[in-house]
Amino acid sequence: MNATLFRHAVHIAAILGLYLSAAMLVPALIDLYYGHPDWEIFAVTAFLTGGLSAATFMATRAGPPPFSKKFGFLLVNLLWSVFSVVGAIPLWLSSLDLDFAQALFESVSAVTTTGSTVIVGLDNAPPGLLLWRSLLCWLGGIGIVVLGLFIIPYLRVGGMSFFKMESSDTGDKPFARIASFSRAFLAIYVTITLLCAIGYSVTGMNRFDAINHAMTTVATGGFSTHDASFAYFGSIPLLWTSTFFMTLCSLPFSILIVLVVRGRLDALRDPQITVFLGYLTAFSVAVAVYHRLANGVEFHLALAHSFFNITSLLSTTGYASEDYSLWGPFVVMAAFIATFMGGCSGSTAGGIKAYRFVVLFNAIRSGLNRLVYPNAIYAVRYGNNTVDADTQRAIFLFFITYILLWVLGSLVMGALGYDLVTAVSAVITCLSNVGPGLGSIIGPAGNFSTLDDPELYLLSLMMLLGRLEVLTVLVILTPIFWKH
Amino acid sequence: MNATLFRHAVHIAAILGLYLSAAMLVPALIDLYYGHPDWEIFAVTAFLTGGLSAATFMATRAGPPPFSKKFGFLLVNLLWSVFSVVGAIPLWLSSLDLDFAQALFESVSAVTTTGSTVIVGLDNAPPGLLLWRSLLCWLGGIGIVVLGLFIIPYLRVGGMSFFKMESSDTGDKPFARIASFSRAFLAIYVTITLLCAIGYSVTGMNRFDAINHAMTTVATGGFSTHDASFAYFGSIPLLWTSTFFMTLCSLPFSILIVLVVRGRLDALRDPQITVFLGYLTAFSVAVAVYHRLANGVEFHLALAHSFFNITSLLSTTGYASEDYSLWGPFVVMAAFIATFMGGCSGSTAGGIKAYRFVVLFNAIRSGLNRLVYPNAIYAVRYGNNTVDADTQRAIFLFFITYILLWVLGSLVMGALGYDLVTAVSAVITCLSNVGPGLGSIIGPAGNFSTLDDPELYLLSLMMLLGRLEVLTVLVILTPIFWKH
Repeated sequence: MNATLFRHAVHIAAILGLYLSAAMLVPALIDLYYGHPDWEIFAVTAFLTGGLSAATFMATRAGPPPFSKKFGFLLVNLLWSVFSVVGAIPLWLSSLDLDFAQALFESVSAVTTTGSTVIVGLDNAPPGLLLWRSLLCWLGGIGIVVLGLFIIPYLRVGGMSFFKMESSDTGDKPFARIASFSRAFLAIYVTITLLCAIGYSVTGMNRFDAINHAMTTVATGGFSTHDASFAYFGSIPLLWTSTFFMTLCSLPFSILIVLVVRGRLDALRDPQITVFLGYLTAFSVAVAVYHRLANGVEFHLALAHSFFNITSLLSTTGYASEDYSLWGPFVVMAAFIATFMGGCSGSTAGGIKAYRFVVLFNAIRSGLNRLVYPNAIYAVRYGNNTVDADTQRAIFLFFITYILLWVLGSLVMGALGYDLVTAVSAVITCLSNVGPGLGSIIGPAGNFSTLDDPELYLLSLMMLLGRLEVLTVLVILTPIFWKH
Repeated sequence: MNATLFRHAVHIAAILGLYLSAAMLVPALIDLYYGHPDWEIFAVTAFLTGGLSAATFMATRAGPPPFSKKFGFLLVNLLWSVFSVVGAIPLWLSSLDLDFAQALFESVSAVTTTGSTVIVGLDNAPPGLLLWRSLLCWLGGIGIVVLGLFIIPYLRVGGMSFFKMESSDTGDKPFARIASFSRAFLAIYVTITLLCAIGYSVTGMNRFDAINHAMTTVATGGFSTHDASFAYFGSIPLLWTSTFFMTLCSLPFSILIVLVVRGRLDALRDPQITVFLGYLTAFSVAVAVYHRLANGVEFHLALAHSFFNITSLLSTTGYASEDYSLWGPFVVMAAFIATFMGGCSGSTAGGIKAYRFVVLFNAIRSGLNRLVYPNAIYAVRYGNNTVDADTQRAIFLFFITYILLWVLGSLVMGALGYDLVTAVSAVITCLSNVGPGLGSIIGPAGNFSTLDDPELYLLSLMMLLGRLEVLTVLVILTPIFWKH
């Protein structure tokens, strides 16, 4: 039984392998164009990955896959594992001299759209390799939106089932609808990427940088082609352009589709959008005012840098325009907290996410009311809808598991010798798929290059856990999952 | 309606005021005995508090109090406010030159059995004042056990209703039972205090120190009569004595009563006891091994110091035998995490508490199983009992509110200018009623004396929130509580 499931899952993973091997030809061509010898590595890896994937595809051929929850969980975990490992191979073999743990970390960071990097010297890295990182990130963004829109709600993980397609829209052709929805999503995703690249070109980047950053912006990934990230460019209009696109891609793509395809502006009235934009504005303005007062920076500059860096954290992108941890203790604390929060469901953003905060706050309010009047009924609302008890419970358990995993990961980081600030911020920035941590090593001005293999493996696991909504990964670790 | 409730609550609070004014005579006599002029302050304050309380008692006389949840919440909040303010007055007027915010912080720290102090120079402080702090702490310990056994379960806050007296034992005379239970509890509380004082005398303290430390040990408060806390004594047997009594007083007093009165050893089979002793041992041994390896300390010394300091944190007492934050990053992280965890329900310990972790872990396991087989039933168990959905929900909301309050408090501490480590550790050590934080200011070798008034008020509020199981305080801030 499990063997059959596994065979089907491997079959689908082989298709992903084929796509990835095709994707490797892009950096190969770029390196060839720029005359960098690393093109051979991409070409050979593409050839080998393609061959192996094709062979696996053939060998595991079978009837239509058995749709069940168990299969869903198995498949999702397998797909992201294959995605990560295949993505790591060219990085591992490249001229950059990364060991496997580093290459895997970099690849996981890309496919989970985290954006933490172990590479120092990005400014002089081979162009194909830079593009490969951006491409992995961009593809990871597609993966996560598809996962968030179609798969996680079906698997009922973390309360996302609340955002299943409205049944009135589904009609009697769910697959046709998924296909048309996917096409619309891809069209919008590509369009936003192009618009973002144009925006970046106009406001201060060369073409190569613009394309790379556009890909990691829409994916809310945050990889840069420069060690200094956005500080390299020193352009204020560029910061505002990026802030706009990071915010856009933290909104639910399902709503962007409804907005663009049907022109329904009222789609933006989703409470999670209000709450997300609310805390984004509140944090950014508070930090800007603090930055103005504490450091005497001109207000329009403080505002631009504050909005950019806070949006970067809340959208879980992870760019930095300055070492904001030097702005003062309030900013450090705000950045730390922002690293937990995240964007909207069905976007490329990670973190705990705005809709969960909506439900958590309403549940706390309802719980307090029930303490006074135990027999009255206080529904937990999300906009005009009532959130059923199962969804609430799923959200509670998600939040609690998230916090407990963060604590456990931090304890291991402590045992591996890291100070408290580095340990707690490393684990949460990976779990929330943000990018930079805090402290002298992995802060906004640092990177993950000095970390050893054990912590790189731990943090890679954290990134995958966070990206797959935590419980999706944990469920395959339970004994009951593997029974008969 | 609310006015009537308020009148009744004030009436009961006046009784507390009378008791407290009587209690003030103890430090007055001690200061008189040692020839310290502060005796007058205690005598005058006792006289004024007693007079005011008696007048209030007369003025608010009415029929039997109206037992309702609303009244319960109002009463608990009022009692702890009165307790804190009355406790603060002699500290404020004393020769120690504390301002009101400092005196209130110290008093709240005592009555909530937290043990954080703003006083430097304890070694030379007036004996009456030292005893007053210990006495407030000791009385606070009584208050919290009574609250945990009788009131919080009735108010159904935070899942404590699960520990209501077993109905089979209650019979048809609940009040008679509460009275006999209270007498048994007081007898055991006093007995343990005496045994602890004797133990401390035998293993290295003089009589005055032994009595003071015994009172703050059974209350798991952690106030010391020396700035250096237990480091002052330099006695290893003393550390083990204290470890034993701190552990004992983190166990449910209801179970200690059953154990002593009826000799039923099987009462110890409560899952929260197993889990509490389990994580206490695991943390202590891990830290001892780390201390041995990292710092080359002899293992028996490492074990004694590790057990003492970890037990001090997990029992939420807050003594320190050394600056353990210098032992290495793993110990800092372990201490930080231990500050959240806490002891058992119905003890004097604070924190999130072991029984909640039992339920949370079982709920996560059940939730993971339900993801795979949504239609199967996986009960959440606590020992041999099933935890009903309402209790689970109450525990989820408690945990979530606890974490969110910690985050919010930390953000304010950041805005007030504190670094991340100080901010997050100050808020959690107060919310969990532990005592020491981390970092150079409030770490195990520091204290809260350099903090300004705004943060002292914030942290006082955090101590009260934590002590009253958070929701008990938050509920009176809801609009619905004050309606008609």
